[in-house]
Amino acid sequence: MKKIVLDCLGGDNGLPAMVAGAVDALKQNPTLQLVLVGDASQIEPQVAEFGDRVEIIDTKVNIAMDEHPTTAIRTKTDSSLVLGLEQLKKREDCGAFVSAGSTGAVLTGGFMKIGRIAGVSRPALCPFMPTLLDGQEFMLLDAGANMDCTAVQLAQFAVMADAYKKAMGMAAPRVALLNVGTEETKGNEVIKQAHALLIKLRDAGLINFVGNVEPYQAFNGEVDIVVADGFWGNVFLKTSEGMVKFIFKSLKSIIKSSFSAKIGALFLGGKLKKFKAEKMDKTNATVFLGLKKSVVKMHGNADARKVLSALQYAMTVADLDLNQCIEQAIAKAEPLLGENA
Amino acid sequence: MKKIVLDCLGGDNGLPAMVAGAVDALKQNPTLQLVLVGDASQIEPQVAEFGDRVEIIDTKVNIAMDEHPTTAIRTKTDSSLVLGLEQLKKREDCGAFVSAGSTGAVLTGGFMKIGRIAGVSRPALCPFMPTLLDGQEFMLLDAGANMDCTAVQLAQFAVMADAYKKAMGMAAPRVALLNVGTEETKGNEVIKQAHALLIKLRDAGLINFVGNVEPYQAFNGEVDIVVADGFWGNVFLKTSEGMVKFIFKSLKSIIKSSFSAKIGALFLGGKLKKFKAEKMDKTNATVFLGLKKSVVKMHGNADARKVLSALQYAMTVADLDLNQCIEQAIAKAEPLLGENA
Repeated sequence: MKKIVLDCLGGDNGLPAMVAGAVDALKQNPTLQLVLVGDASQIEPQVAEFGDRVEIIDTKVNIAMDEHPTTAIRTKTDSSLVLGLEQLKKREDCGAFVSAGSTGAVLTGGFMKIGRIAGVSRPALCPFMPTLLDGQEFMLLDAGANMDCTAVQLAQFAVMADAYKKAMGMAAPRVALLNVGTEETKGNEVIKQAHALLIKLRDAGLINFVGNVEPYQAFNGEVDIVVADGFWGNVFLKTSEGMVKFIFKSLKSIIKSSFSAKIGALFLGGKLKKFKAEKMDKTNATVFLGLKKSVVKMHGNADARKVLSALQYAMTVADLDLNQCIEQAIAKAEPLLGENA
Repeated sequence: MKKIVLDCLGGDNGLPAMVAGAVDALKQNPTLQLVLVGDASQIEPQVAEFGDRVEIIDTKVNIAMDEHPTTAIRTKTDSSLVLGLEQLKKREDCGAFVSAGSTGAVLTGGFMKIGRIAGVSRPALCPFMPTLLDGQEFMLLDAGANMDCTAVQLAQFAVMADAYKKAMGMAAPRVALLNVGTEETKGNEVIKQAHALLIKLRDAGLINFVGNVEPYQAFNGEVDIVVADGFWGNVFLKTSEGMVKFIFKSLKSIIKSSFSAKIGALFLGGKLKKFKAEKMDKTNATVFLGLKKSVVKMHGNADARKVLSALQYAMTVADLDLNQCIEQAIAKAEPLLGENA
């Protein structure tokens, strides 16, 4: 397996959380090898036991959450983010880079340092979202990287996600367009144009486009890939997260409000927590799809458990040759989509 | 109080649900007077006890869910929807019209038969959404009537909602723009332009614009009015509803899965149901804001309980002179917004 590079300075919880998650991942996965980028004096004592499975790139320079992404990437050439991306870029033996740094900086850094796959107009964030069906998730993209997308860009998202899923072993992933109704006349102008392009790709046998879906259908597990523009995809993502918080906070205050409810919660408690942890933390990490190598962004507030889960996710993409799969798929789609991307 | 006109034929549950809800509303509100539009032979026996508090307009013609809205409104002049809207239009003593008919037909009918308030570019759907704070909701608009909005139209939504809330007695409603981050540089192009216009309106003292909000902040109760374009407003609404279904279905299967969870649910059960009914059915009915008189759309699947709740909502708007309040507010805002609506 290819090595994974971890930015140990990005994120709200800093180096201790990153290194703790890395240590857990190394313990659980005997073949995992990591390149840790951060303060070597703090990292070294904690990973000594893993010998040459761990390399350390020493730096104390971090890009803060509120720095301007482009300026920071250009000027902070010795930051953990830039150094880590450079490792990924130049080394054949590295397959993925993982960071909890600011979304803007990670995306800009990935874009500038790793570069887009040939033919890709816009790389996209593609987190997995939970469904009612056990073990089944759907991929949402773009979940927030691009605020104003054209129909061709939306169609490219479908093609990239389809190539990714196929590379992961799924034969004919069900691709859908996020909309406010299932009829093809529904939605805004961009959606309607994208719908027509996706029909073309379906008719050419390139993707298994199943039409528009409303949010509840995605949560029901009716599709594998949900395509959206980065703005309303992010509205979808953040509304989901907001509603989860709203309901679980409400449940808490219901439980606090009466004795019998407290008893009920005692019986239910563990299962609720398990549900929340297993189903609701799915959006923690996402690859930035469309770059030449896999850059994985995790939540800024990632703790050790989430770092572990992001590293496990990175392991699933580190050895995939997404670059080649996506380049070929985009090239096949291009004659049907035109070039107004 | 002005009379309320009820379309008894629209909706998935048909006349029995509409009339049952009407009877409950009449019993609970001694001053309520209704004009019921539908099959008189079925309605009459059930409302005889209310004497002249109930008028009946007899028709058996309904506009079905799948009919083309404009064609249906033009040709089915004896349908319950058209007859009801005509009552509202021509009668001084009628203050609101309520229907569970197809959204497209109710909106088109309202637009064509009642007409827009002078200066309003696009009327908007404005349901109330729940927050964590007891008794506090926020108004979301546009929740789905207009799929591609300009920045000026978004700003007009803010002005209309502000006028409505002020007419309801709120001194300085907190107006926010639905976005994916709070900074003014966030979002797509339309959002950024709308943000600039709302700042102008705020600086002129016309509205209490508090900036961008993310979904979770709206659910926290941080604002009173959330402005969105009809497409992503509807994505927000439907994602909220989809996530509620997802979580409650998941809870059900957790509860079914083990004996101790079943016991827990027994203790909790009533409170969960109460929470769901009180907080989660808020989006059942909404006025179509920006028309000369109040047209209220309720969910297509409304049962007697939801019809009752929609009629109670209609009672709160029937006597408000929204026409005048909104016309004045739009006129004041116009010099700041320009006319590119």
